[in-house]
Amino acid sequence: MTFSVTILGSSSALPTSKRFPSAHVLNVHERFYLIDCGEGTQIQLRKYHLPLNRINNIFLTHSHGDHVLGIFGLISTLNLLGRTNDLHIYGVADFEDLLMQNVKFFTDKPSFKVIYHAVDPFKVEEIYTDKHVVVTTVPLRHRVPAVGYLFREAPKQPNIRKDIISKYNLTIADIVSIKNGHDLVLPNGDIIPNSELTYIHSQPRSYAYCSDTLYSERLVGLVKGVDLLYHEATFLHSELELARKTGHSTALQAATVALKANVGKLILGHFSSRYKDIQLFLNEAKSVFQNSYVINDGDTIQVSPKIVDSQFD
Amino acid sequence: MTFSVTILGSSSALPTSKRFPSAHVLNVHERFYLIDCGEGTQIQLRKYHLPLNRINNIFLTHSHGDHVLGIFGLISTLNLLGRTNDLHIYGVADFEDLLMQNVKFFTDKPSFKVIYHAVDPFKVEEIYTDKHVVVTTVPLRHRVPAVGYLFREAPKQPNIRKDIISKYNLTIADIVSIKNGHDLVLPNGDIIPNSELTYIHSQPRSYAYCSDTLYSERLVGLVKGVDLLYHEATFLHSELELARKTGHSTALQAATVALKANVGKLILGHFSSRYKDIQLFLNEAKSVFQNSYVINDGDTIQVSPKIVDSQFD
Repeated sequence: MTFSVTILGSSSALPTSKRFPSAHVLNVHERFYLIDCGEGTQIQLRKYHLPLNRINNIFLTHSHGDHVLGIFGLISTLNLLGRTNDLHIYGVADFEDLLMQNVKFFTDKPSFKVIYHAVDPFKVEEIYTDKHVVVTTVPLRHRVPAVGYLFREAPKQPNIRKDIISKYNLTIADIVSIKNGHDLVLPNGDIIPNSELTYIHSQPRSYAYCSDTLYSERLVGLVKGVDLLYHEATFLHSELELARKTGHSTALQAATVALKANVGKLILGHFSSRYKDIQLFLNEAKSVFQNSYVINDGDTIQVSPKIVDSQFD
Repeated sequence: MTFSVTILGSSSALPTSKRFPSAHVLNVHERFYLIDCGEGTQIQLRKYHLPLNRINNIFLTHSHGDHVLGIFGLISTLNLLGRTNDLHIYGVADFEDLLMQNVKFFTDKPSFKVIYHAVDPFKVEEIYTDKHVVVTTVPLRHRVPAVGYLFREAPKQPNIRKDIISKYNLTIADIVSIKNGHDLVLPNGDIIPNSELTYIHSQPRSYAYCSDTLYSERLVGLVKGVDLLYHEATFLHSELELARKTGHSTALQAATVALKANVGKLILGHFSSRYKDIQLFLNEAKSVFQNSYVINDGDTIQVSPKIVDSQFD
């Protein structure tokens, strides 16, 4: 069961010839969630063979052009492709009117509905859930209202122990009942508790997307223990003042969040185009948090299943 | 003296991983004119090492997303780069309001003015002139008001014959006077007519950009004899009905325009993503007009000087 992130854009406000503006695709069990949608996102989706038409939910962090300017073209393209499913967009309230005006202008005879869900950038709220994933907002600290997103794999039903099925000669009805959490009542009246029949194979995985933001202690608490953290690192720490002034973080600060939050892995992006050597970001982050990585467009980061118990598989 | 076109995008409405949406840059004597501005234009400008900040004039053909959606990001980037020169945009009237709204939304503390010049898509008019180029509108026939542009190198001042300078021992004042069209009066009162002192080294070059459009006889007349013609070819002629229905041309029709207009060279683009083999467009066009070429993103097409007389260089 896949849980991975593909990077479509890793530049900050000024794209380069090698780095498009911000956009990530989260793949949870072959369901695709788009996070931010910088200019050229539709081109990157094609380049990296991601299925445009299977994106039903787009999560926007804030209304700066380098995070949203690909959405007008993407919606126009989805329309040309004959999409009929509703498209849900989550983002701060101030973008809705302009988005809808652009959609109206650039989409000839719309074949599907665009539904905008304004999220409160200052609250921690569960804003989306389906059978694969639960999405919670993560307030950020930027020059404009901005919100990150924490994606958690939906809790899984316990598995039934393979050895139990033959031991008690279980019927399909028994199995369904046990999966629903019931105990097993044997013909002789004995009761086998559900916990002795089932096991948790693996824990839900998690991904937090945090861009753009100043260093934030509150954020540390909100992303505690996530498996994969994307935290922007627009600047090196030598430019801390500039980072503060522009509402951004340094690689060292991002790594400090990762360390304090005890995350599994940190990925850094949103690099300012002033830096030619991205290795410097990696070195700086690793000095604080060893499991740090810098991203490039086209990278896919897999989060492995967190096996709890496999002896009954 | 350069006169060349660099292709930034050659796809039709649906970009592919290899072809961005429409945008060309015309270089006339190291002055850069942007024609159309599809999504990702700023990325392509960087990729092909074209100077973003030296573009002062943008010519938009019509208000479909694949021809204009890169302009919001480009303007936002120019602002971040600290541009101060006015930016002039030429296009049909219906795009102005939405453009200005987007510019306002996405451009923080604008450092320069965006000046929109609404052009009449039904008239042939000289809409722009500087000392290097003269731009004339070329009405197109599309589903929405659309206008192409004809760029002609500005007529050159005659050169002074090198042999004349020593023969008559000309002063700087004499040379300026002759360059301004005056005859030369010798000390003895003899008059040497200007035509015997000067020569035309080369003729002005021309480029016509025609996308999107149905086949048009009127267009043939308007691009008569241009050195380089870009004519859209969204479809092969086997899809003529679809081309007609969507307001587009086939490769055969584009080549017919080139033939009838007796142009120097034809370049074809705006290919529908349904075709995997672009060679088919080339074959179809060449069957009508031999000097046909298909374009790819990143191509630069040079137009050589049209030497009239070089014996006095």
